[in-house]
Amino acid sequence: MVNETQHTCSASSSSKSDGGSSSGSESSKDSSRCSTPVLDADRHERLREKMRRRQDSGDKWFSLEFFPPRTANAAVNLISRFDRMGAGGPLFIDVTWHPAGDPGSDKETSSMIIANTAVNYCGLETILHMTCCNQTRDDITGHLQKAKRLGLKNIMALRGDPVGEEWEEEVDGFNYAVDLVKHIRNEFDDYFDICVAGYPKGHPEAESYEADLRHLKEKVFAGADFIITQLFFRSETFLKFMKDCQAIGITCPVIPGIFPIQGYHSLRQLVKLSKLEVPQEIKDVIEPIKDNDAAIRNYGVELAVSMCRELLDSGVVHGLHFYTLNREVATTEVLKRLGMWKEDPRRPLPWAVSAHPKRRVEDVRPIFWASRPKSYIYRTQEWDDFPNGRWGNSSSPAFGELKDYYLFYLKSKSPREELLKMWGEELTGEESVFEVFTCYITGEPNKNGHKVTCMPWNDDPLATETNLLKEQLEKVNRRGILTINSQPNINGKPSTDPIVGWGPSGGYVFQKAYLEFFTSSEIVTALLKVLKKYELRVNYHIVNVKGQNITNAPDLQPNAVTWGIFPGREIIQPTVVDPVSFLSWKDEAFALWIEQWAKLYEEESPSRMIIQYIHDNYYLVNLVDNDFPLENCLWQVVDDTFELLN
Amino acid sequence: MVNETQHTCSASSSSKSDGGSSSGSESSKDSSRCSTPVLDADRHERLREKMRRRQDSGDKWFSLEFFPPRTANAAVNLISRFDRMGAGGPLFIDVTWHPAGDPGSDKETSSMIIANTAVNYCGLETILHMTCCNQTRDDITGHLQKAKRLGLKNIMALRGDPVGEEWEEEVDGFNYAVDLVKHIRNEFDDYFDICVAGYPKGHPEAESYEADLRHLKEKVFAGADFIITQLFFRSETFLKFMKDCQAIGITCPVIPGIFPIQGYHSLRQLVKLSKLEVPQEIKDVIEPIKDNDAAIRNYGVELAVSMCRELLDSGVVHGLHFYTLNREVATTEVLKRLGMWKEDPRRPLPWAVSAHPKRRVEDVRPIFWASRPKSYIYRTQEWDDFPNGRWGNSSSPAFGELKDYYLFYLKSKSPREELLKMWGEELTGEESVFEVFTCYITGEPNKNGHKVTCMPWNDDPLATETNLLKEQLEKVNRRGILTINSQPNINGKPSTDPIVGWGPSGGYVFQKAYLEFFTSSEIVTALLKVLKKYELRVNYHIVNVKGQNITNAPDLQPNAVTWGIFPGREIIQPTVVDPVSFLSWKDEAFALWIEQWAKLYEEESPSRMIIQYIHDNYYLVNLVDNDFPLENCLWQVVDDTFELLN
Repeated sequence: MVNETQHTCSASSSSKSDGGSSSGSESSKDSSRCSTPVLDADRHERLREKMRRRQDSGDKWFSLEFFPPRTANAAVNLISRFDRMGAGGPLFIDVTWHPAGDPGSDKETSSMIIANTAVNYCGLETILHMTCCNQTRDDITGHLQKAKRLGLKNIMALRGDPVGEEWEEEVDGFNYAVDLVKHIRNEFDDYFDICVAGYPKGHPEAESYEADLRHLKEKVFAGADFIITQLFFRSETFLKFMKDCQAIGITCPVIPGIFPIQGYHSLRQLVKLSKLEVPQEIKDVIEPIKDNDAAIRNYGVELAVSMCRELLDSGVVHGLHFYTLNREVATTEVLKRLGMWKEDPRRPLPWAVSAHPKRRVEDVRPIFWASRPKSYIYRTQEWDDFPNGRWGNSSSPAFGELKDYYLFYLKSKSPREELLKMWGEELTGEESVFEVFTCYITGEPNKNGHKVTCMPWNDDPLATETNLLKEQLEKVNRRGILTINSQPNINGKPSTDPIVGWGPSGGYVFQKAYLEFFTSSEIVTALLKVLKKYELRVNYHIVNVKGQNITNAPDLQPNAVTWGIFPGREIIQPTVVDPVSFLSWKDEAFALWIEQWAKLYEEESPSRMIIQYIHDNYYLVNLVDNDFPLENCLWQVVDDTFELLN
Repeated sequence: MVNETQHTCSASSSSKSDGGSSSGSESSKDSSRCSTPVLDADRHERLREKMRRRQDSGDKWFSLEFFPPRTANAAVNLISRFDRMGAGGPLFIDVTWHPAGDPGSDKETSSMIIANTAVNYCGLETILHMTCCNQTRDDITGHLQKAKRLGLKNIMALRGDPVGEEWEEEVDGFNYAVDLVKHIRNEFDDYFDICVAGYPKGHPEAESYEADLRHLKEKVFAGADFIITQLFFRSETFLKFMKDCQAIGITCPVIPGIFPIQGYHSLRQLVKLSKLEVPQEIKDVIEPIKDNDAAIRNYGVELAVSMCRELLDSGVVHGLHFYTLNREVATTEVLKRLGMWKEDPRRPLPWAVSAHPKRRVEDVRPIFWASRPKSYIYRTQEWDDFPNGRWGNSSSPAFGELKDYYLFYLKSKSPREELLKMWGEELTGEESVFEVFTCYITGEPNKNGHKVTCMPWNDDPLATETNLLKEQLEKVNRRGILTINSQPNINGKPSTDPIVGWGPSGGYVFQKAYLEFFTSSEIVTALLKVLKKYELRVNYHIVNVKGQNITNAPDLQPNAVTWGIFPGREIIQPTVVDPVSFLSWKDEAFALWIEQWAKLYEEESPSRMIIQYIHDNYYLVNLVDNDFPLENCLWQVVDDTFELLN
């Protein structure tokens, strides 16, 4: 008989149920059949579940702590850092809470907004710190409600520093972190995962190490899910602390806080704030080299690596938490040496997913925002539901208006002077614009010797995938087909392919060739003649800034241009060319000419008028070659167009 | 400038709308993004639109008239005829209304139920005739409500024959067809397409030809959408009638009713009923050969073909309506000679679609019912919504219970004696069952010289596609892997491929290899050992009649096994292996052993006990090879299993 049941399914035969879903609209709504296949468990689990799964599978992890920046420019830089360090695969990041910096406000630099950006725009699992000392119950509830509304799911509950010497406990107030933990559980039930702080040497203000351990236990028993520790300098300190935690009955995860020494002054300041003592053997090494930053950092990295190795080798540590001080180099170096930095993180989908819970099922987006995923998330943040399985009906929710300039939205992260060097201090005609596009594609320096590393439609250098098309792209940009988005056709490459792969392993990914560009009306006229020959093969959408729109798309249906086939799953089609969203994208794409480029120049200046002319007169064109198993015909279409013009 | 706008899209840029769909659940329900790509306009248009589109494109069409059968067995045969004649591509069929035969009842032979079967189970656009004479308003409204509920969308509004000589007009009653037309439009607004009858020679009871034309005009002006005419014998008759219609302002389509003469007696009877006169030149030919059925039919076909040619050549006729008398040969022959019979009808999806309006968006089904599409439709008839885009959530509506034996549902269309000849008058052991499966696969006669042309799970001979796997299937069935469903892997064949193609042209279709079979627990034990080697490549579900279920499917997710990529459209994935529906299919698949096979034999007979033993002890297994670009590994899995057993 069969007794090797690997997975036994307990779902009872549904023929025994009461036959059909005819019991009203509520049930048929519940049975909505368009749920997303679980491509990526990470998107569906809460943080404590992820931690547990990593612990069970023996897969070591790390996390990164950041503090909110002081200026809007620093915020833009920090977001780029989130993207770069996010690529290394942290299990989560956390953002500290600075009561003096209006941390719950809507300012670009507030803790709340930085955490919001990390979750929603960078797709990072994020813990928001929150302190409770000297705050009213209403303030705190308000902050928590806002955090929930923004899609934040994890809170680090802290007391915070009492203001002044004469601090006294308030009756019924928030005097300790445990009060905040209780409040969160009372008011928000199990919605948030809660983290609390542990002090391997005891809290500096605690009566004793033992008393502090008892406070920690109270916090855990009040509902905290895990503990992150204050920094320490010796692995023994942490290992003893963990043992002591277990001894008094703390069984939740305890994560060591790692502080790679990055400089003499930052070490001194941190030590002062945390009231810790630096061991003599470390002082002995550092004092003689205190003016040599590189030497100190190297030493700090060495020290952190060897301490982390001891922790990991102990068998009781499954994850490491890094105090980055908003810097990249030291922490990244430590992680790389430990082999914990993911050099090639698997992409669950070909675009950057958001970690907002309401976007959990999202798995289809228009291709237009491929290089501007944050802008796409921003313009769709008000949507109640997100497309999955199918993009579906074109008469779907509208895109947010082009009315503000939120951080990364219509703003470039490079300063004006740099942009002028890349895009030209002075333009002499449309050809000088062609030249900028061409330099961006080739990576060659422009006439003044500056490399063009970003464009208004593309804040980063050319994607590896686009590199596959470099030669052709260069040729067409030189002649005024100003490309802003493209992908090659792919006829079934393994989902693990380092360039075009995405999704779980064992699958195959496919693409239809895509090309999107601005070009003059003269070229469009020739192009339309050529496209008649390709009517059955190539779909096109051609639109100008006024919205005059020419297309051969059947019934305004979306065209899937990227899809993947995976073992044991339904088909995933993460990018489509949607005729209706194209009109919203058009507004953004044309606005970027003006907002990012024309406005670099004086009003009425010839340079500004050139960009304005292009904005007013050029067309935005997209082309899809439907015949993905054959050689991409779009280059032939463009060649035929140039030939017709000659 | 661009002035060659092929299709100008008037959709205004959605950035001007009020930003987002946050206006409540109703709007987010409306914006459900899972609509089906329009693969097949026919499924989305009403009959009068289809007619108009065919007329505009110059694509000539035909339709077929049937009457309801007298017995349940005749009903089973008529349904098979619907399938066979439906394959020729009629624009619609119509079912006549016989007041004496309880036409609106739930009997298997009623007009209502036959029309229901044609629409829902055979996927045919169908017109239900309805007469109004001598019926109450409530009766008529009841019939129309029922028709609407069953998914019927078209009514042929007729007066019907008054009963007896002493018929008099009822005040406020239904005296003429025009009363029924008005009633339908009053009570059901524009829901139904309405057809009325036209009499090229004038209605026999009309005061005059002209008066009859005026009555026809009244019916059209009351809301009829098109006209089908009484039969006639000369094309001039019809062409004059059409001219006269136009002259008095009838502009809707007028479809000639064609009656291919099929025999002497049927002609005489029809002529008597319709009070028409057969032209002398036809009588002259027929009378001498009146006892030679074949000769008369040949003549009838010749006559019909030449008359149809004259009509089509006239330029005013776009479609032909055939009075089939429920017979196939003559009408099919006429249509083939006219070149109007679709030899290779394009399949919009790889399974037979239903024409019920609520199934219009349906484009995903479990593969299990591939050979039993009517049973699938029957078991899901109570569903409120149908999966499209994705199969989705496994906790979806339940399948109808296995409680009755509706026409084709658990019944075979062959009589008991024939089944016994095919499946064995007497079984001597499990091996004699293996032999039956093997003969079905090979098409070779069994020991007693009878071919096995159907099986309990398959009412038809082996599908052309399955023929691709014949050799391997034969081998495994001989050894007790009793296959009931399979498909080869396909890695991107043109959608126009005559064997595996489906959907619009210009696309590519794909399949994962699939194999489904009954087998003994001994073989299952060996199979499970072998499957360990294929864990990452092959998904399996193994279940016995009691529901003991073994699977390696991740999270009970459905696995797409057939999909297609088409120009300018989202991806279509019409068949999936769904772990949850498999348990409902299992009930049906096991029940067929007993209902169709075991019950052929006496209770307690050895033959019956053999089938009962298999039913009680065998497992139903399905296997999917996920690696569709490689050679199908499922045969290797089976070979390895046999090897392990040796």
